Amino acid sequence: MSRIAYVNGRYLPLSAASVNVEDRGYQFGDGVYEVCEVRDGRLVDMPRHFARLQRSLSELRIDPPMAKAALEAIMHEVVRRNRISYGIAYLQVTRGVARRDHGFPTVPVRPAVVITARSLSFERNQKTAADGIAVVTTPETRWARVDIKSIGLLPNVLARQLARDRGAYEAWFVDRDGFVTEGASCNAWIVTHDGKVVTRHADTHILSGITRAVLIEVLESLQLRLEERPFTPQDAHGAAEVFVTSASQIVMPVVKVDGHAIGNGKPGPISMRLREEYHRFSHLSP
Amino acid sequence: MSRIAYVNGRYLPLSAASVNVEDRGYQFGDGVYEVCEVRDGRLVDMPRHFARLQRSLSELRIDPPMAKAALEAIMHEVVRRNRISYGIAYLQVTRGVARRDHGFPTVPVRPAVVITARSLSFERNQKTAADGIAVVTTPETRWARVDIKSIGLLPNVLARQLARDRGAYEAWFVDRDGFVTEGASCNAWIVTHDGKVVTRHADTHILSGITRAVLIEVLESLQLRLEERPFTPQDAHGAAEVFVTSASQIVMPVVKVDGHAIGNGKPGPISMRLREEYHRFSHLSP
Repeated sequence: MSRIAYVNGRYLPLSAASVNVEDRGYQFGDGVYEVCEVRDGRLVDMPRHFARLQRSLSELRIDPPMAKAALEAIMHEVVRRNRISYGIAYLQVTRGVARRDHGFPTVPVRPAVVITARSLSFERNQKTAADGIAVVTTPETRWARVDIKSIGLLPNVLARQLARDRGAYEAWFVDRDGFVTEGASCNAWIVTHDGKVVTRHADTHILSGITRAVLIEVLESLQLRLEERPFTPQDAHGAAEVFVTSASQIVMPVVKVDGHAIGNGKPGPISMRLREEYHRFSHLSP
Repeated sequence: MSRIAYVNGRYLPLSAASVNVEDRGYQFGDGVYEVCEVRDGRLVDMPRHFARLQRSLSELRIDPPMAKAALEAIMHEVVRRNRISYGIAYLQVTRGVARRDHGFPTVPVRPAVVITARSLSFERNQKTAADGIAVVTTPETRWARVDIKSIGLLPNVLARQLARDRGAYEAWFVDRDGFVTEGASCNAWIVTHDGKVVTRHADTHILSGITRAVLIEVLESLQLRLEERPFTPQDAHGAAEVFVTSASQIVMPVVKVDGHAIGNGKPGPISMRLREEYHRFSHLSP
């Protein structure tokens, strides 16, 4: 079955889904995106995704392309047409098409909207989690406003490729003070030997992850202790457990950081428990 | 006359010139570009532009899309079909179309090539230069590798818009040590009261401008003294002259920085002379 995408008002086969070369997303990276988990054919945690989308758009002074309900309905339709049971939906909004000029268009343009969806293998994801992943660290190179979920992801692309070149799955950025900010497409967590679950506080230096936010609720419910503070790669090497969070990986155990085995080299019990508990706390759309 | 663009092998009316939504330029900002001056219908300084393009591509491990001669022939054809006498040609190369995944595509994909061109008003440019422009400064927010001419230009977009919101024409980035790096789309220069022409040395914190490089040859020929070193906004306020350089503006006098009038508030004699001399040193394609 060929995949279907929504592009500016039309549902199209992905091969025919195109945008103008003067779309500002293509010439300037002038746009934002969301990646949403799909479970049982339903979108997960949409109110949070829409709140973050609205914040990203607002920071860039891009008008909302349509009402949330309309956007959600289209996302559902893309999920349905692609017959996704388990996977992700991708939503991208750019400032629109205008003659190339760095400043915002001086005449109003319609924001461009692209929505795609695709299946993931739940079994393969579970297998990856059962094995745990390896992470490498790399100097932070991104811009100063990564709290805006912009499509300008070239530093993330290069970091992820670096990880792959080194036989790892993900890369973590380390700032000039020596602290981990976050991964190329995930938030980073450690569990200390006295059972505290630690992740960096959310400011302009990390993206405030939806999975991260839901997981904080999970921790509270399970009466696990949370510490929102920076940690170093060395803290991770010596931690009891390490894991990452993202919409497509949920809670993914990390068993190696820069070649150092974490704990006994297997996914930790708290990480695995959080992975299992997670979906009791996430909200499925109707 | 509708404008014509070249897109992946075809010449198309701009309104029909499109790229797939999974072009990595659109989803990740995973591509690079060049903007070349056109004079008398001929491309200016192409060997330098191609050398820089090759460097940008190489840093990102994107294969050259075709031989330089072929690329230059297409750029000429786009200029010709658009009947450009004076203006700019725009060339964008992205990693190509692949299913969305941060790491490089694991199967080879063809880089995507888009070329557009448009006329500029030489008279309007001259008028702007005769009046001089205003510049504002703003904190450096860009990523750590702006020496790669990537299409991830959102910080530049926001800076340029900030300038416009403040009634200015261009914005300069100022790093955390208080030094000007460069403008949103130009290199920054000052002329000291003892006649030295100063611009920041080129490293990973600025883009090594083609116009900047040619102007350094002009300075040598005119036996003007060049200093490649950082300067502060305060140095600019107190300078004899200030100007910026780019392919579309060549040498553009600056008469105001953050509201401070420069010199007597009019374009300076060295800036204007450099603007006039510039084209004796730039190289026209056949």
